Amino acid sequence: MENRAVADLLSQARGETPADMVIKNASVVNLFSGRIEETSVALGGGLVVGLGDEYEGLETVDIAGAYLVPGFIDGHIHIESTLLCPAQLARVMVPHGTGAIIADPHEIANVMGIDGVRAMLNASEGLPMDFLFMIPSCVPATHLETAGAALDADALEQMAFWPRVLGLAELMNFPGAVNGDPSVLDKLAVFKGRPIDGHAPLLKGPDLNAYVTAGPQSDHECTNPEEAREKLERGLWIMMRQGTTAKDMDALLPVLNKITERRCMLVSDDRHPDDLAHKGHLDHLLRRTVAAGIDPITALRLVTLNPARRFGLDGLGAVAPGYRANLVEVGDLSRFKVNRVWHHGDLVAQNGQAMEFSGPDFDQAARDTMNLPQLGEDSFSIPVRSGKVRVIGLKEGEILTEHRIVETPQKDGRVAADPARDLALLAVVERHHASGHIGHGLIQGLGLKKGALASSVSHDSHNLVVCGMDPRSMLTAARAVGDMGGGLAVASGTEMLASLPLPLAGLMSDAPFPTVLEQLERLDEAAAGVSRAGEPFMALAFAALAVIPHLRISDQGLVDVGKFELVDLFVE
Amino acid sequence: MENRAVADLLSQARGETPADMVIKNASVVNLFSGRIEETSVALGGGLVVGLGDEYEGLETVDIAGAYLVPGFIDGHIHIESTLLCPAQLARVMVPHGTGAIIADPHEIANVMGIDGVRAMLNASEGLPMDFLFMIPSCVPATHLETAGAALDADALEQMAFWPRVLGLAELMNFPGAVNGDPSVLDKLAVFKGRPIDGHAPLLKGPDLNAYVTAGPQSDHECTNPEEAREKLERGLWIMMRQGTTAKDMDALLPVLNKITERRCMLVSDDRHPDDLAHKGHLDHLLRRTVAAGIDPITALRLVTLNPARRFGLDGLGAVAPGYRANLVEVGDLSRFKVNRVWHHGDLVAQNGQAMEFSGPDFDQAARDTMNLPQLGEDSFSIPVRSGKVRVIGLKEGEILTEHRIVETPQKDGRVAADPARDLALLAVVERHHASGHIGHGLIQGLGLKKGALASSVSHDSHNLVVCGMDPRSMLTAARAVGDMGGGLAVASGTEMLASLPLPLAGLMSDAPFPTVLEQLERLDEAAAGVSRAGEPFMALAFAALAVIPHLRISDQGLVDVGKFELVDLFVE
Repeated sequence: MENRAVADLLSQARGETPADMVIKNASVVNLFSGRIEETSVALGGGLVVGLGDEYEGLETVDIAGAYLVPGFIDGHIHIESTLLCPAQLARVMVPHGTGAIIADPHEIANVMGIDGVRAMLNASEGLPMDFLFMIPSCVPATHLETAGAALDADALEQMAFWPRVLGLAELMNFPGAVNGDPSVLDKLAVFKGRPIDGHAPLLKGPDLNAYVTAGPQSDHECTNPEEAREKLERGLWIMMRQGTTAKDMDALLPVLNKITERRCMLVSDDRHPDDLAHKGHLDHLLRRTVAAGIDPITALRLVTLNPARRFGLDGLGAVAPGYRANLVEVGDLSRFKVNRVWHHGDLVAQNGQAMEFSGPDFDQAARDTMNLPQLGEDSFSIPVRSGKVRVIGLKEGEILTEHRIVETPQKDGRVAADPARDLALLAVVERHHASGHIGHGLIQGLGLKKGALASSVSHDSHNLVVCGMDPRSMLTAARAVGDMGGGLAVASGTEMLASLPLPLAGLMSDAPFPTVLEQLERLDEAAAGVSRAGEPFMALAFAALAVIPHLRISDQGLVDVGKFELVDLFVE
Repeated sequence: MENRAVADLLSQARGETPADMVIKNASVVNLFSGRIEETSVALGGGLVVGLGDEYEGLETVDIAGAYLVPGFIDGHIHIESTLLCPAQLARVMVPHGTGAIIADPHEIANVMGIDGVRAMLNASEGLPMDFLFMIPSCVPATHLETAGAALDADALEQMAFWPRVLGLAELMNFPGAVNGDPSVLDKLAVFKGRPIDGHAPLLKGPDLNAYVTAGPQSDHECTNPEEAREKLERGLWIMMRQGTTAKDMDALLPVLNKITERRCMLVSDDRHPDDLAHKGHLDHLLRRTVAAGIDPITALRLVTLNPARRFGLDGLGAVAPGYRANLVEVGDLSRFKVNRVWHHGDLVAQNGQAMEFSGPDFDQAARDTMNLPQLGEDSFSIPVRSGKVRVIGLKEGEILTEHRIVETPQKDGRVAADPARDLALLAVVERHHASGHIGHGLIQGLGLKKGALASSVSHDSHNLVVCGMDPRSMLTAARAVGDMGGGLAVASGTEMLASLPLPLAGLMSDAPFPTVLEQLERLDEAAAGVSRAGEPFMALAFAALAVIPHLRISDQGLVDVGKFELVDLFVE
């Protein structure tokens, strides 16, 4: 900021010239002291410039005693999990009081590499919510799959000092860190002295000590209080995760007390569109936290000042002079119903509706990421080579899969689905380089009765994953996803039943949120029509996640996660 | 650190290879949780690499259940106030558990500018205590005096990114900041996004809002709880000062509670050698804090994790993996008697004694800063021009002075001292550039009976200040200080009674601490022999501090602080 502009702000702060705006009759929640201050807040140049009754403004808003709190901050979220592009996401989140998110563009990085991260940054510039980024640390997630890109330490260094980049995103390769893998240490070295997020489920004792010594300063994978306490005592910031898939908050709230609280925060990790629509974002977590008996000041700190401190964001997380005027008006400190929201001093939402704004377009290159080979029905069925096969066994309500061995389901000498045993055909088609690599397998427990599902959302490499009861349906669904440039599809025979286009890297829509919600609803209906399971697309998206035990599938074949190697579909 | 070295540390952390050292049977005070952990601490490569009972070390120290706490951190101190050079200071502080100080080399900067700051950095490299620095923001302190150097924004920029430089030191020119003085804003801009310390006594309301908006993030000038609470609520970190001169701790401890505590710390600002010898350093403040009823965990946080967080020092302030092995063994958490002290993993003190170490020499240039003009008796006595003169009036126990007007004390047509009215001659001789500038005045209340005192410690420009009952004594004392290359001297007639050489910039000794203490004692005795006042050198050192009301003296003459302008000694 020019000296002249600063001097103007200071004049507003001194009360000598009218502030750009004054919010009067506010019950300001002071998170430094825990006190509620009944006062006015003066805003100038997008910042708070003062609190006090003496301020007059060019514009005045009387909020009639309502509470004024800082904009909420989500310390860890994958934008891609919302299926929305940044502009549409802002439209949804801002009315819920979200002022900033710290995003890990891990998914798009797996598809597009550096270009994907750049695209996400470009597409989130100038929106009515602060989009801050951590640089993905583990692309690809394993060597047993083909991603669209690989990011080594040199690649990370190129991105490390881009504007709005804070540090290194969740270091999922925790064995690599614990054991001093040089490629991991190289990446950590790039971000020395800056925020480095961790990801180390159930790690404890000496291995945890090694992980923390290596560099990560936070963890969002705690699932029980003992784990969280140990990690906190070893110096990690604890991100209590409450996403759409993983919900750890209730288990972890007992960790909070007046001493530990300051090192904790609430984060989403992933949040699906229907969750955003029906529950909200951090406002929902605040409601839940206070309902669970946590005092509102502590609850608010978990989504404001604490993440701001953890990430060194000096201008965020409080209502104080020099801080960004990211402000949220709420009627009470229990339901946290959001009335008005200001971002950098501008009113950006009111009564649950975002104000109109225009956002940057998503880079065109993101619309051309589906590079499929020529596909036929044969692509989804292979000749039988043995009487026994490995099967990915789903377990109700668990993300872990079982490694099962069953008699080969077959028809006309080819591996086939078997409705009687709830066995569906499964394939992962490499879709970044049109290499023609296809991994084949079988999945049990999906409840598919007929037809097929296909998706380009398939963690972490986001190849095209297809499951179905017959090759023709699978071909139909797969081709549909290809034709959309990515997305989700349900087909039966040659008929398309429903689809959700995700043309941005095959991961995100650029349609308005209501459209996406509607498409998603139709898709879920169609999926329910062919399947008995609750969320077959979720199971599909995780079928390829080669870091979670026990049996997974990639474009290179079946992955025995325990042995961390490829295994043959057929068992001798 | 090389990957290979890191991998070795991680192996120690995993417990696969023996740690460099293991401290067994420790009661580790975990400042993240407040819990006392009875465990072992593994040290490798100067860092803590793990906590746990399973560790074995190449070396083992059994501390038999004693408490282990992180090295103490003083968030704000002027090294020069101790009269010791960094190496000697480390020798004194380390046995008291001090692991790091954040120093503002404001005094030496006033004498030597950039070279002075560099000299202080060089002289504090590799010592058994971490010396971290803030860059002096206000050199010279005013335009009404002649300092040895002036540091503008460009000069600050040269120093801003030197190793061990954290940010911008106390911004004493708070009117300049509040009112948007461009030269002040330029300096703040250099340190944008980094720690900026404040200094704004009694500032409140809109002016405080403006000050905070301008950039400072802390304050160490609070003297009452209301002031501290307001500043804390506006986002400032509160440094509760307990130095040799200013003692604000008792007044400010009531501000502490579980919410506010995390934004507070205890600092020294200044600490004289006798205080260090008889009371200690932060260990003394811990004793006092706990005696005042603050729980030990909170007290410890005020001198460990809180300053570390305030300054973004990720590896300091806790006993945790990856943190520097700056550790202090104390027998209990009330008296905080320090047994052993480790710094970067090395034992550096035991039973009150620092281990031997060699420190770098102080830059030679610092020994050549006394540039006095030719002085004679005439230099200290001027012809009477009027029957009334202004007099600096001292008040018992106050740093404020009075602006008094009295009948001119005279002898043979020249201004003279007058023992009956407790009036002594006073002069400030510009000593940086041998310009010959001498400011003349009179001081009342010093209790001087005969002889003279001279000092090159004279805030903030550190010119040569001399007071006395006759010009001959003044000349003797002044010449002695010049001959020593700076220091303090007491003379009577042509006889030198005692002196304390401060040859480093005229501010610091390079003698061992016991020598300095002894010299100081003899000096105080000699001063007591010629004066009735308690600490005449202290009064002398502050007589030139042109920012504290009401009447002061500089080499340019008398300063009316209220009007912030020079005024004539004589009144018409």
